Amino acid sequence: MTSAGSPDLGVRSPIRAAVVTLSDKASAGLRADASGPALKGLLEGLGAVVTGPFVVPDEQSQIERTLIDLTDGGELDLILTTGGTGLAARDRTPEATGAVADRLAPGFAEAMRAASLSVTPHAMLSRATAGVRGKTLIINMPGSPKACREHFAVIAPALDHAVETLRGEAFECASPGGSA
Amino acid sequence: MTSAGSPDLGVRSPIRAAVVTLSDKASAGLRADASGPALKGLLEGLGAVVTGPFVVPDEQSQIERTLIDLTDGGELDLILTTGGTGLAARDRTPEATGAVADRLAPGFAEAMRAASLSVTPHAMLSRATAGVRGKTLIINMPGSPKACREHFAVIAPALDHAVETLRGEAFECASPGGSA
Amino acid sequence: MTSAGSPDLGVRSPIRAAVVTLSDKASAGLRADASGPALKGLLEGLGAVVTGPFVVPDEQSQIERTLIDLTDGGELDLILTTGGTGLAARDRTPEATGAVADRLAPGFAEAMRAASLSVTPHAMLSRATAGVRGKTLIINMPGSPKACREHFAVIAPALDHAVETLRGEAFECASPGGSA
Repeated sequence: MTSAGSPDLGVRSPIRAAVVTLSDKASAGLRADASGPALKGLLEGLGAVVTGPFVVPDEQSQIERTLIDLTDGGELDLILTTGGTGLAARDRTPEATGAVADRLAPGFAEAMRAASLSVTPHAMLSRATAGVRGKTLIINMPGSPKACREHFAVIAPALDHAVETLRGEAFECASPGGSA
Repeated sequence: MTSAGSPDLGVRSPIRAAVVTLSDKASAGLRADASGPALKGLLEGLGAVVTGPFVVPDEQSQIERTLIDLTDGGELDLILTTGGTGLAARDRTPEATGAVADRLAPGFAEAMRAASLSVTPHAMLSRATAGVRGKTLIINMPGSPKACREHFAVIAPALDHAVETLRGEAFECASPGGSA
Repeated sequence: MTSAGSPDLGVRSPIRAAVVTLSDKASAGLRADASGPALKGLLEGLGAVVTGPFVVPDEQSQIERTLIDLTDGGELDLILTTGGTGLAARDRTPEATGAVADRLAPGFAEAMRAASLSVTPHAMLSRATAGVRGKTLIINMPGSPKACREHFAVIAPALDHAVETLRGEAFECASPGGSA
């Protein structure tokens, strides 16, 4: 998506991202959403153009609807969700993500859990997943601002290449996950 | 589930667990079940109240029926299975677990495989999974007493918090996997 | 599958493997298939008898048909695919593998991604999976010869035991992933 005729110096249009916060309490106004703004700030720190955070209750059908509405416009490269990935009865973010994704991308969540395990055994409770819908990558992040910062540091170095691949800007890639 | 009026000093009722051994040979009385009693002892060492081991043949429908019967009473926090997670034709424990689970929890098996990989490359043959049915966490453990001990050491530090979350005793958790 | 009457000295018949290259460009003759021959050479270096590489475009139905044709003869222990595991729109190898597999074996891809993560964060983009169809283990490998070599080094130490288990030659195994 470099403008026509420009030399390819690795300059590409910024990542277009959205943040979705899943929280019954934040949605009902009973608690401020802290992790959504944290993720937005982290993405903007990478140069991304970010919409949201959109605050949605932990209701699977509403989460799915939000993800579908955001992706089907075709204007987003990346959605980060925060919240709803644990073992509590209302935690349904991974199920909603899996339901709307065309293809799963388990490596993002595996990498975040592995890194987090070196900090706390509670990391293994995370049921986070990731997947692609259309050309949008959806990644589930944890529910606290501190954990969001820690996990974002894990995925940040892979986001540019992920978006280039989804946009079709990285055809000749020979990365470990790339196709021949 | 602390008794009403008691100060919350972190004292909670013990984990209520069951052990299920999947083995054609043990079920037919052709071999003693060694891993089931090993897991029971390990759980009791954490203060859990444990029923079983229930010995079931490697028949997917029977495994599913056993897991459903044990969980639908609503009295169990945790089921550990042992056996049936390998590549052999009769190994169907992960399929049975996935079929009865409402939600998958891949982090437990990922953590066990990662720890085991540092000991043996055979760790990657494990197809173990984990999931939640109702309020019961079901985790597939390996089939030998030695491997059960090694893998149990990986998950043990996360079990208390997992059970608290499933019981709804950890609402305000800000763990990496928790919801906002 | 040792010949009748031979003493069991750990000598078994060689692994019977096939290599399948998924690539629109290689299939159309627009690019040489470099990763397929690389994998074939690596397998032969382990003593395997290898057919292929079969070069197939990134069309999910054609990938599935190829995997089914190769496995349903019952003569193969192992299929390694190369290509089609990334985030690009045409990358459908994991979906085809999951569709034809009777049972998934996530440990192989987890181990490869974990090892690759120590080299590059791009490892988390890999959507590779593995599974068993009948008695054949199917493992998705990356799409470049260099990455194939790196990832093959991860799974190679587990292949003999995997094949023994699938053939039913490892009944009494007490490995971490084995059944009781």
